[in-house]
Amino acid sequence: MTTPIIFDTDPGVDDAQAIAIALAHPDIELLGLTTTYGNVDIATATHNALLLSELAGQSIPVAQGAAAPLVKPKHPAPAHIHGANGLGNIELPAVSGQADPRSAAQFIVDTINARPGEVTLVAVGPLGNLAAALQLDPGIVERVKQVVIMGGSIREGGNVTPVAEANMFNDPHAASRALTAGWPLVMVGLDATHRCVLSPADMDTIAAGQGRLGDVLKGSYGFYRDFYQQALGIDGCCPHDSCALAWLMAPQLFTSARGYLTVVTDGDAEGQTIFAPEGRDFIDARWSRTPPVEVCLNADGPGVVSWIVDTLR
Amino acid sequence: MTTPIIFDTDPGVDDAQAIAIALAHPDIELLGLTTTYGNVDIATATHNALLLSELAGQSIPVAQGAAAPLVKPKHPAPAHIHGANGLGNIELPAVSGQADPRSAAQFIVDTINARPGEVTLVAVGPLGNLAAALQLDPGIVERVKQVVIMGGSIREGGNVTPVAEANMFNDPHAASRALTAGWPLVMVGLDATHRCVLSPADMDTIAAGQGRLGDVLKGSYGFYRDFYQQALGIDGCCPHDSCALAWLMAPQLFTSARGYLTVVTDGDAEGQTIFAPEGRDFIDARWSRTPPVEVCLNADGPGVVSWIVDTLR
Repeated sequence: MTTPIIFDTDPGVDDAQAIAIALAHPDIELLGLTTTYGNVDIATATHNALLLSELAGQSIPVAQGAAAPLVKPKHPAPAHIHGANGLGNIELPAVSGQADPRSAAQFIVDTINARPGEVTLVAVGPLGNLAAALQLDPGIVERVKQVVIMGGSIREGGNVTPVAEANMFNDPHAASRALTAGWPLVMVGLDATHRCVLSPADMDTIAAGQGRLGDVLKGSYGFYRDFYQQALGIDGCCPHDSCALAWLMAPQLFTSARGYLTVVTDGDAEGQTIFAPEGRDFIDARWSRTPPVEVCLNADGPGVVSWIVDTLR
Repeated sequence: MTTPIIFDTDPGVDDAQAIAIALAHPDIELLGLTTTYGNVDIATATHNALLLSELAGQSIPVAQGAAAPLVKPKHPAPAHIHGANGLGNIELPAVSGQADPRSAAQFIVDTINARPGEVTLVAVGPLGNLAAALQLDPGIVERVKQVVIMGGSIREGGNVTPVAEANMFNDPHAASRALTAGWPLVMVGLDATHRCVLSPADMDTIAAGQGRLGDVLKGSYGFYRDFYQQALGIDGCCPHDSCALAWLMAPQLFTSARGYLTVVTDGDAEGQTIFAPEGRDFIDARWSRTPPVEVCLNADGPGVVSWIVDTLR
């Protein structure tokens, strides 16, 4: 039985690998890519989404979405991490396809409503498209199968502030809307993704198995790896976005807990995901009033990396 | 060489043990106890501070301080943790001594200024007295030897909210003032204190060595232990406040890092201590503008417990 998904993305080096997985995995049916600003600006995100599916020889709908946050001003895209073109500044082939005429939010609404109870929404960038889809049709919370989010951090600390992960910090208001919407939701954040380090040798194996797409994955990985080496002293990269798909297809590789999320939208903790585990009492109930969700607190890092490499081998 | 200290406290079961250490340790010169509301109301805190030093047969100045937070409304004292009398609701002997006529803040200012460069201020409750002392004489930041704070949490999560430790949550505005004052400061928070669990057998050893004071320590410990058993499923207690003195006298038992603290004063992360390690770049510099401090990130728990038991044996 295949798993039909919409993949909401801001590609992005680690997004590119996750898109390759969504395209390659025999049990994933990729219904469409929806794009958002984040790792790159929105035009680049859409360009890269079209390019990556073309390189895999597949025709996948791409619907363009948020160019900016819902409420706060936009930060510049992190060109030092993903490259100005989002794919490590390597030279890229031309794109022939065009984006779907619908907005990402409309595409999400239409696609979920066309197959009630079947479609999983996997979101690995800032969550503006999810907030916009909920604005167009709040009823999708009843019709989506589940929502898998790459983002946030509970105990791991942040990667763009001491407490906030980049996707949440980029649009905390959208994140607050999406994480507390009441749909079946799993958050795969830094507590899990930082356990996973993809080595240069792993990347060689992937490149060998992915043809023209593999060349782009490997080329962009080199740039991303330099950032990890300089900023964090790691030889290898955390495959953040692929972890969301790993959770979807191999949840036994993750440790999770149920509870309640609050996203801080203002002040010095802006973008932080506060998690109150189910059954734990605090000084008052205000952190336990949002709809219950599932949150990953750990991962079998080598197991997740093996799953990624095996999928793209 | 002895270490002269002022001990700022809201006794409280774990405070009582720490006070016993300050009274018993041959290398600590206890210049005075200053009291604050927190685990108990202020009158109870002052009563207990007087009682504990009398039970040890010592005459130590006790100066009463903050009865309430600087800015936010006061939460009721946690009688389910420390007992309504702060010492596990056991019957207590009468007190004969009286408090110093000065406020805690004035006592702190006078005592630091009388011995410039010599006095260490150890604070294990909400930080209102430190904020008030800084208001009376900001120059004490140059004359205090160092400030050791029990409170806060970096990666460990909170104990009264998902992200805030009780002393910080009780008075986040005072905490912000005290933790960013620019004096030489060490924070010993839940990342260290939760590594330490004092067992019932450890408590028996302590009780046997401390005479009448030992009876109170052991009696109150029983009540505190029930809380730990019910709320956290641990057989034993975290000796939070004693950890501040353990850091002072045996810092080799702790792992710490230098960096910058920001205390969140409002919103859902209220009372959280945000730590930006020195040398780590974030998306902007706003978390790295406070004066640098030292923060404990881990502890050799069994080593700290041994140090406590050996001191009180």
